[in-house]
Amino acid sequence: MPPLPTPTPKELLMRVRKFIPPLLETMHKGQQGRVAVIGGSEDYTGAPFFSANASALMGADMSHVICEPQAAQVIKAYSPNIMVHPYMRQSHHREKGTDTAEEISTKIEEMLDRLHAIVIGPGLGRDSLMQDTAKLIIEAAKKKGMPFVVDADGLFLVQNHPSVVQNYTHAILTPNKAEFERLCKTMKIEPSHGDETEVCSRLAKAFGGVTIIQKGSKDYISNGKHTMVCDLKGGLKRSGGQGDTLTGCLVTFLAWKKAYQDRLWKHDNSLSDSELIALSAFGASAMTRNCSRLAYEKKGRALQAFDLSLEVGQAFKNLFESEDPKL
Amino acid sequence: MPPLPTPTPKELLMRVRKFIPPLLETMHKGQQGRVAVIGGSEDYTGAPFFSANASALMGADMSHVICEPQAAQVIKAYSPNIMVHPYMRQSHHREKGTDTAEEISTKIEEMLDRLHAIVIGPGLGRDSLMQDTAKLIIEAAKKKGMPFVVDADGLFLVQNHPSVVQNYTHAILTPNKAEFERLCKTMKIEPSHGDETEVCSRLAKAFGGVTIIQKGSKDYISNGKHTMVCDLKGGLKRSGGQGDTLTGCLVTFLAWKKAYQDRLWKHDNSLSDSELIALSAFGASAMTRNCSRLAYEKKGRALQAFDLSLEVGQAFKNLFESEDPKL
Repeated sequence: MPPLPTPTPKELLMRVRKFIPPLLETMHKGQQGRVAVIGGSEDYTGAPFFSANASALMGADMSHVICEPQAAQVIKAYSPNIMVHPYMRQSHHREKGTDTAEEISTKIEEMLDRLHAIVIGPGLGRDSLMQDTAKLIIEAAKKKGMPFVVDADGLFLVQNHPSVVQNYTHAILTPNKAEFERLCKTMKIEPSHGDETEVCSRLAKAFGGVTIIQKGSKDYISNGKHTMVCDLKGGLKRSGGQGDTLTGCLVTFLAWKKAYQDRLWKHDNSLSDSELIALSAFGASAMTRNCSRLAYEKKGRALQAFDLSLEVGQAFKNLFESEDPKL
Repeated sequence: MPPLPTPTPKELLMRVRKFIPPLLETMHKGQQGRVAVIGGSEDYTGAPFFSANASALMGADMSHVICEPQAAQVIKAYSPNIMVHPYMRQSHHREKGTDTAEEISTKIEEMLDRLHAIVIGPGLGRDSLMQDTAKLIIEAAKKKGMPFVVDADGLFLVQNHPSVVQNYTHAILTPNKAEFERLCKTMKIEPSHGDETEVCSRLAKAFGGVTIIQKGSKDYISNGKHTMVCDLKGGLKRSGGQGDTLTGCLVTFLAWKKAYQDRLWKHDNSLSDSELIALSAFGASAMTRNCSRLAYEKKGRALQAFDLSLEVGQAFKNLFESEDPKL
């Protein structure tokens, strides 16, 4: 028998639609998604905001940021819609003898029970206390079987401690070109050997079935067994911060995966857990590329990261609410 | 042989286009420019924001501000698109016995390796620790051969320590009328002797080939050897902060100079280093005047500095993306 033909982007997007929860009269606050972004430090406040804001604009009912106190003040000011919790600490800001990574993460772990999915890394920074705390939060999320996305300086953590995500098939890593190469180095994979699809697959396999979204002019998505390419038309500007729209869209899809599996509405339950994760990755990649395209058409070279956020609503309509996906 | 005719503004703008990097599918984040503005203090937060924001709207992929901590909180809140680092210190805010200019600048110097060009001065203020730190950063940038722009209270530094930029042909100073006169005084040049073009050229020569953009109803641009005048139509409102759009546009051009010299795309490599600096200065002057004109047509007397930012995208299209520059 010949191999089955690869589904087209439109076919994949039609399958993504199957687990987007309908907005029903009977639903109540929180059921469409409760998510959080762990990140935001002395140096970075835009990234966690873009991610949490994109998750809300995708449709999550409640979007949180958990970050360092000074970053919290700023992120709160970006938008009153996002709930921002100043629970993280950088080494040089903690009071003497207090605020260990364990104490900080314990407080945050209590929040995890009320959340469906999280992103770890946007604006996290490389401070050791921030990194140690993030590591403990990842370990807690794993114990709860919670899906999570690791990006930006969260990938720095994974690069230094690959075992923290290894074999956890509910983890998605979203490296850009440079981060991908560093992860390959950690896992002793030669990034120039083989075509991109194959290298991405080998990295996912080395991580024991973690899903990788390798961002670039095309996005390669693999969990080691199945690999997809998302090459929908995007914009041509590569300003910093566009990846945060990806993680925000992705974490909402992961929350919807749980809503689907909890049978929050009537459906045929035909999608498996690993298919739901793969479709989440594809859907988020398609959303980000469509946002980037729409924003670039308006702004051209002047495009900034926040311009992508402004397109999340329209991109969602294009891909998931028009009769036929508009790519 | 008669002297060659001076190129027209349109001819100059067509030459500027030669080193504006095309937006290619294959490019990745950062290649279109990584820039920073050093400034922002207790008293001034608008200036560094306008400058960094203009650099991003011109097309830099990553725009940073490095400033005093309290200014940082405010500048972050202006826009999540700009990365703001609270590394500078004012004398009366430093902790006892810590935070010397050397310590502060060492931290900032580490960032310079990841940047293509910087602006020193917007909102810097005249506090001695801020000035001393800026001086060390200039010296570090020179060692790395990095191009930089000095404006505002950065020019106060140059006025007191002219040797810090002297003979460094990758420095551009952007004085207004009062700052220009103070620089002339420092260099013992009589500003009323000779026409403006000639005085600007003499000042550039006294600084050993530094480029001067003397801002005014016409902008005079000289490196001592070559002098240009940019008299494209601008607005008639002279609100504070318009010069920050100039430095922001300029620093992105300087980042593109490096992209051009690194052969990031295929080109005929016909522009010399000094020509690239002169064209950067002319291009930034033209951009600022076009922004000022567009904003003034909309706002009239009510024009404020931020209105110029809103026109950067349109001005870029007018000058560099329409078939024939629209002045």
